[in-house]
Amino acid sequence: MKALVYNGPGKFALQSCPMPTLQGPGDAIVRMSKTTICGTDLHILKGDVPSCEPGRILGHEGVGVVHEIGSGVSTLKRGDHVLVSCISSCGQCEYCRRGMYSHCKTGGWILGNRIDGTQAEYVRTPHAQTSLYRIPAGLDESALVMLSDILPTGFECGVLNGKVAPGSTVAIVGAGPIGLAALLTAQFYSPSQIIMIDMDANRLACAKRFGATACFDPRTGDVADAVMTLTDGAGVDCAVEAVGAPAAFELCQQLVAPGGVIANVGVHGVPASIFLDKLWDRNVTITTRLVDTVSTPMLLKTVCAGRIDPGRLITHRFAFEEMTKAYETFSHAADTHALKVIIEM
Amino acid sequence: MKALVYNGPGKFALQSCPMPTLQGPGDAIVRMSKTTICGTDLHILKGDVPSCEPGRILGHEGVGVVHEIGSGVSTLKRGDHVLVSCISSCGQCEYCRRGMYSHCKTGGWILGNRIDGTQAEYVRTPHAQTSLYRIPAGLDESALVMLSDILPTGFECGVLNGKVAPGSTVAIVGAGPIGLAALLTAQFYSPSQIIMIDMDANRLACAKRFGATACFDPRTGDVADAVMTLTDGAGVDCAVEAVGAPAAFELCQQLVAPGGVIANVGVHGVPASIFLDKLWDRNVTITTRLVDTVSTPMLLKTVCAGRIDPGRLITHRFAFEEMTKAYETFSHAADTHALKVIIEM
Repeated sequence: MKALVYNGPGKFALQSCPMPTLQGPGDAIVRMSKTTICGTDLHILKGDVPSCEPGRILGHEGVGVVHEIGSGVSTLKRGDHVLVSCISSCGQCEYCRRGMYSHCKTGGWILGNRIDGTQAEYVRTPHAQTSLYRIPAGLDESALVMLSDILPTGFECGVLNGKVAPGSTVAIVGAGPIGLAALLTAQFYSPSQIIMIDMDANRLACAKRFGATACFDPRTGDVADAVMTLTDGAGVDCAVEAVGAPAAFELCQQLVAPGGVIANVGVHGVPASIFLDKLWDRNVTITTRLVDTVSTPMLLKTVCAGRIDPGRLITHRFAFEEMTKAYETFSHAADTHALKVIIEM
Repeated sequence: MKALVYNGPGKFALQSCPMPTLQGPGDAIVRMSKTTICGTDLHILKGDVPSCEPGRILGHEGVGVVHEIGSGVSTLKRGDHVLVSCISSCGQCEYCRRGMYSHCKTGGWILGNRIDGTQAEYVRTPHAQTSLYRIPAGLDESALVMLSDILPTGFECGVLNGKVAPGSTVAIVGAGPIGLAALLTAQFYSPSQIIMIDMDANRLACAKRFGATACFDPRTGDVADAVMTLTDGAGVDCAVEAVGAPAAFELCQQLVAPGGVIANVGVHGVPASIFLDKLWDRNVTITTRLVDTVSTPMLLKTVCAGRIDPGRLITHRFAFEEMTKAYETFSHAADTHALKVIIEM
């Protein structure tokens, strides 16, 4: 089969690989029909993710059809249309039983990282019964690819951790795909304001269309002043960090109201400053989280019910043979205006 | 009357002051019978608290007897024995209605800070009905002084924010009065381990007597290694920062388990580092809080019921005339082994 292989920092290729085979009774083999590229894949290509070794097939998102199941799999059958979750989880270990599937002792984020991933014609998925989701008939499969990672990530790490509630005020720092996923899912809870902050005019325009009540480019003025004006001097109840950079995290600390939450979603490569001298008595909460995908079934229902259309995040489509072009388009988002790209097998 | 007055950085004196008078219908005047000194008072004396201006009577803790009430006070009467809370709260503003009394728009920590405090023969207490607590008969008044600030602070900012639960593992960095208050109140919830960390051998010995399951001096070995060994390599479910220093906060980040909480209690004067590069995917929560004193009635019940004896925190007693000596004793705790001092009027 063909697959997109990471061959060490800066090097990748669509190349021939052996077909995956079942390795345990809980495994399934899925024939992929659609996948996408994540910002994390770009981190891997830069050599930032040491757990992902050269030779690895990348990708942790996508939809497909069950091709083969292990002897222990009873809730799925060959031919089922399934969503592949970015998080594999046994459902049995201590972390899984607390709903922290991201820290499953034999799973977590392993696809396209510690084991071969979904940017391939076929993928082996361990813990298939608790890591694949049957897709209801009649749904747009491309839109569902957003439910593998990006939508639950924005929702769980940003909106749920951020305790977004009716009437609350929200600022989202970063209007990339993850920030926009947080923007879309924050609206489930009817906040009074969602303020988007980014330096990319195209992404801010997109945020405005997606329901932002205000948009700011921090280069055009003091964002903290602007947010204070919008919130009667209090700051926001929830500040979502959707960039993964010290400056963005530090800005969130300027924006948060007493009693508010800073929900970190971004992937960070370096430490940041925490202004405890200003925050120690402000009753704030700061959270970090690797998506647990506890909300995947719930998000599927919101898509089925038409409460949300994650397909709005898709800007480009490519055939699997065009993987290289897809990576180029996705990694030059400032020029290409790419949000999420769909790759069809 | 006599009162302990802050006369600018490094200067204070027990001196004659005018008697306080009622300034609003919700006020009460309390004749103080016992008070104490807080680490925050020492911060003020260093000039670290700009909101506290020279000429201010210090103190935000103590018990006394209601001497006079404003026309709007109906739930207290002259002669009532009362506990003075360190937090004054109107009970009516937006923050109070969320239970965030510490951020009351006309209260908060004002006693001995923005208005005259309790290290005096008489004190005016605004919002008396929601800031004074009638003391049940027959209780040790000295022990109750610990309920003005230190016990609810250790409990709310450390134990409640830290989500201490049956079987959970707890590390408390700092075994001063606040860390020990957290240690005492953490035991309400039957954690499996409470590990105390401090550089003062006397305080660690005290922690051991108060119920710590393990004690470490970070100068004698790698604390993080020791804590990992005690917790099967996971780290602690709850790390309490009870020092107010970057090193202590940063140590907490090394100790916390995936899914755990770092509950900051310490008063910080400078920023610290937050290792987001290590924590972004660990599902941790960091909280800050100025005590809201939401738990004061509950803590009073635990004292009445004999579930806790906060009097164990008291090491020294002084007459009011010995205030200067009391400050000296409290501020040289390493030599005097002082925890909390009681001053009797």
